[in-house]
Amino acid sequence: MVGLDSAALDAVKLLATRRLPGIVVTETDGRPYTVLPASQVVRFLVPGYVQDDPSLAGVLGESLADRMSDQLAGKTVRSLLTDDPAELPSVAADDNMIEVAAAMARLRCPLVAVMDNGKLTGVITASRLLELALGAR
Amino acid sequence: MVGLDSAALDAVKLLATRRLPGIVVTETDGRPYTVLPASQVVRFLVPGYVQDDPSLAGVLGESLADRMSDQLAGKTVRSLLTDDPAELPSVAADDNMIEVAAAMARLRCPLVAVMDNGKLTGVITASRLLELALGAR
Repeated sequence: MVGLDSAALDAVKLLATRRLPGIVVTETDGRPYTVLPASQVVRFLVPGYVQDDPSLAGVLGESLADRMSDQLAGKTVRSLLTDDPAELPSVAADDNMIEVAAAMARLRCPLVAVMDNGKLTGVITASRLLELALGAR
Repeated sequence: MVGLDSAALDAVKLLATRRLPGIVVTETDGRPYTVLPASQVVRFLVPGYVQDDPSLAGVLGESLADRMSDQLAGKTVRSLLTDDPAELPSVAADDNMIEVAAAMARLRCPLVAVMDNGKLTGVITASRLLELALGAR
């Protein structure tokens, strides 16, 4: 997880090096705020002139890494989010698996935040929940 | 990847055992059709009466594994998809990274299908693309 005011480049490095599909973004007081999906950061790899005219994507010399650090330098995680960030479902540490599945299904979110006494103690991914459900036979 | 007419339970087992956030669904001729996200399968864990009244989620005896196999027995992958399945972006095996990023950013999809001579040869995830972009420094 990363804070809303963390450096954008640090969040991207976490997504990249751990190969995460997304990362939990927390408010300054530590409460979970939303998820930043890796797919949402990828747009910072695409130069503006390619966004305007996709046919130009094939004719490019500039390095991706330079583009990424240029675009993200000095920015915070907050600036990577869309105007309407996804609601992150949360469950209590003592909720049962049906409650977790219901929270996840309601928002179709690939992960839920697990809260214990107002603190984020972890996350549960959809695939982990399926694994537990199948393994419990 | 799984075919549209594969057994639903096989697809769920793949998502669960390999902890995949999603799986590519192919048409009967092998062309990629869409992605089935693990988060979309989780709803089959939730009994109808809990979907109607979430407050009942806490009072449950039945095993999750039984519910899952009951609900998915005899069903195909096609029946797990929503009415409006997400478009899966695809790129050519010799496209450059900007082209891949542009395809992914356009549909905000966490993965793209890589096609070579009309055949699906693999997928690239958003986090893998970020990893390559940072590593290329």
